[in-house]
Amino acid sequence: MKRIGIIGLGTLGSEVAKQLNKQGLWLVLCDIDESKQISGLPFTTNANIILNDPKIYMVVELIGGYHPAYEFIAGALKNGKNVVTANKAVIDQYGSELEQIAIENEKCLKFEAAVGGAIPVIDAIQHSLTGNNTKKISGILNGTTNYILTRMHESLDYETALKEAQEKGFAEADPSFDIKGKDAAQKIAILASINFKTKINSEKFYVRGINSIGQFDIRYANSQGWVTKLIASAEVKVNGLELKVCPTMISQKHPLASVAYERNAVHLQGDANITLAGEGAGKAAATSVISDVKRILNGAKPERYFGNNEYIILSNGNLISRFYLRFDAVDKPGVLHHISGVLSDNKISIWKVEQLGESNSKVPVAIVTYETYYSTLNSALGSLDRKIADIRSIIHVLA
Amino acid sequence: MKRIGIIGLGTLGSEVAKQLNKQGLWLVLCDIDESKQISGLPFTTNANIILNDPKIYMVVELIGGYHPAYEFIAGALKNGKNVVTANKAVIDQYGSELEQIAIENEKCLKFEAAVGGAIPVIDAIQHSLTGNNTKKISGILNGTTNYILTRMHESLDYETALKEAQEKGFAEADPSFDIKGKDAAQKIAILASINFKTKINSEKFYVRGINSIGQFDIRYANSQGWVTKLIASAEVKVNGLELKVCPTMISQKHPLASVAYERNAVHLQGDANITLAGEGAGKAAATSVISDVKRILNGAKPERYFGNNEYIILSNGNLISRFYLRFDAVDKPGVLHHISGVLSDNKISIWKVEQLGESNSKVPVAIVTYETYYSTLNSALGSLDRKIADIRSIIHVLA
Repeated sequence: MKRIGIIGLGTLGSEVAKQLNKQGLWLVLCDIDESKQISGLPFTTNANIILNDPKIYMVVELIGGYHPAYEFIAGALKNGKNVVTANKAVIDQYGSELEQIAIENEKCLKFEAAVGGAIPVIDAIQHSLTGNNTKKISGILNGTTNYILTRMHESLDYETALKEAQEKGFAEADPSFDIKGKDAAQKIAILASINFKTKINSEKFYVRGINSIGQFDIRYANSQGWVTKLIASAEVKVNGLELKVCPTMISQKHPLASVAYERNAVHLQGDANITLAGEGAGKAAATSVISDVKRILNGAKPERYFGNNEYIILSNGNLISRFYLRFDAVDKPGVLHHISGVLSDNKISIWKVEQLGESNSKVPVAIVTYETYYSTLNSALGSLDRKIADIRSIIHVLA
Repeated sequence: MKRIGIIGLGTLGSEVAKQLNKQGLWLVLCDIDESKQISGLPFTTNANIILNDPKIYMVVELIGGYHPAYEFIAGALKNGKNVVTANKAVIDQYGSELEQIAIENEKCLKFEAAVGGAIPVIDAIQHSLTGNNTKKISGILNGTTNYILTRMHESLDYETALKEAQEKGFAEADPSFDIKGKDAAQKIAILASINFKTKINSEKFYVRGINSIGQFDIRYANSQGWVTKLIASAEVKVNGLELKVCPTMISQKHPLASVAYERNAVHLQGDANITLAGEGAGKAAATSVISDVKRILNGAKPERYFGNNEYIILSNGNLISRFYLRFDAVDKPGVLHHISGVLSDNKISIWKVEQLGESNSKVPVAIVTYETYYSTLNSALGSLDRKIADIRSIIHVLA
């Protein structure tokens, strides 16, 4: 029987080990922490024992992070082993290079669990939807931020929602990687690379997190029948590929609007529009790892996920959107006149304006613009007198 | 280059032909109606010309119905051609047999478009989710009935909603096959057969249509925060497989609740819960046909979708559910006493009761039961005095 090495026995790794063991597969486990041993299963703290064992047919890398995960994956492939990983960071950063090593060694490199947890979105894009001509991918790809935003829509403030997410195990002790949108950026970079047969790195495009969103913004969205989501998207446009991760107010009728709490979803727009939704976090990703393992055991052939297509990645300034803007404005006549004057000078049209509260000194004012370039918005905001109107929140609007 | 024969040039067939032609594939088209020709492409009215042409590598069967579709598919496979079809009727009825012919001839038989239109649900079950251990499949698999029920929830009456669906091309001139749930039954039978590696025929289980649903029922569902859907489901239970197609009131928080109008969706519950949603009808299914064609062109190997697992299919009477019941009752004291007495005699507990309107003679009364066997419900209903309370509507409740 084919022997499988599993490196990394955290929540995901130990779940995968248990499931595969239950299915009667022959496993060798590895973790630097001896306490992670599972009784009855061979265990080592030295990954090289797995990487150099000629009887090991497949390595499942579940330690996460860039290093030594990269070296383990590359080493396993070079030693003639197939590899399954859930490591979005490594695939984002080194996907093309690792894939090349896999192809040269005629081995499989699979990573379904790296994006969308249990949702088989990589397989859908790579195999199931080749006839769909997908032009745009939009996703809720980070469970932490989706949980926080959902709870904020249920009227919790940001800090309370974050704390709750941490207590429930949906957010890391240091949540900044998720909160700032970087996790979602790595994931959309991977999906876009597969769909458009190219290789895009997550550091190459516009990423904005959810940390400046407050209850004023959420209540405004509610009042409009909108839902605030951290949307990661990739779309082919006439002049290049537009990739972005940014908080976005979407209509309650949008296919992603009902994706709540820690759930993830991907919406694919092509000749047909398809939505895939499910559990994105934690143990649920084990199902994707196991599906990949089974596929390799069933004789899957090495294949290319990425490609050499070259696209111009649109710069931040070239993004076009409607924008929701929240200002802290002085409570004096003429404030709106000042803001609208600056927007008008920059040829930005206003769709909606609303004062969000009352105060003796500063009042929050919401403005939703019609479509404009992000660069245009930025120069307008730069021309505002911050003593009159201080910008506190910028959220894209898709409604 | 590999030549592809397309038999059947209706809406779907002509769309597939156009798309594949655009991609530079070498096509031969066939339809009994000469007016379906597409200029510039070889055409015949005689399917045997395609079936017997040794240069034809793959046949795409899109005529629908049992015969001669079955004979065309079997003939093509026996003549050494791969086959792609969107024909749910043939796959439901003869799937196992045709698959055997395909395997014996070492050819592919693919039918992604037969279920869920553009949604790659067959591929998800067969390939992507092998690690998920899916125990239950629930789907909105018929666009016509979902469109009608959605519009009824927007306060249209049944006849108006049906007429509108017909005008928009979502319902056939004779809609009875859809309305009665038979289309959805064929589709869930196919999905269940693949997931549970067996072969179930759609005539073997409980199927109930939407034709007895009226505005009283819809308004009641609205008042409870429920949505009425035609749900097709398959679930492995201790004593067998439970398959059913029936109108069901589901909570607005259910993953299928937001699937509106002609859209389809499938919810898969296993180690993780996954929802796939998209366009189920008409031209959108072309994307699934084309994905299948591409997969075969890319060297897909023959494979078994069905299997020889044997399951007991639970009989109607063994289904357990909460039930919504609407009675036309005489407007006299003691009616509720009579109904509740009969239900109580049959050990059926009542969850909710509500009179739905006022009248001088008959009044509609809604009762929602707790879980009971369908057989128990039926014998209770049989004991009711129909002159006092006449049952008009039975809808499952999942809330």
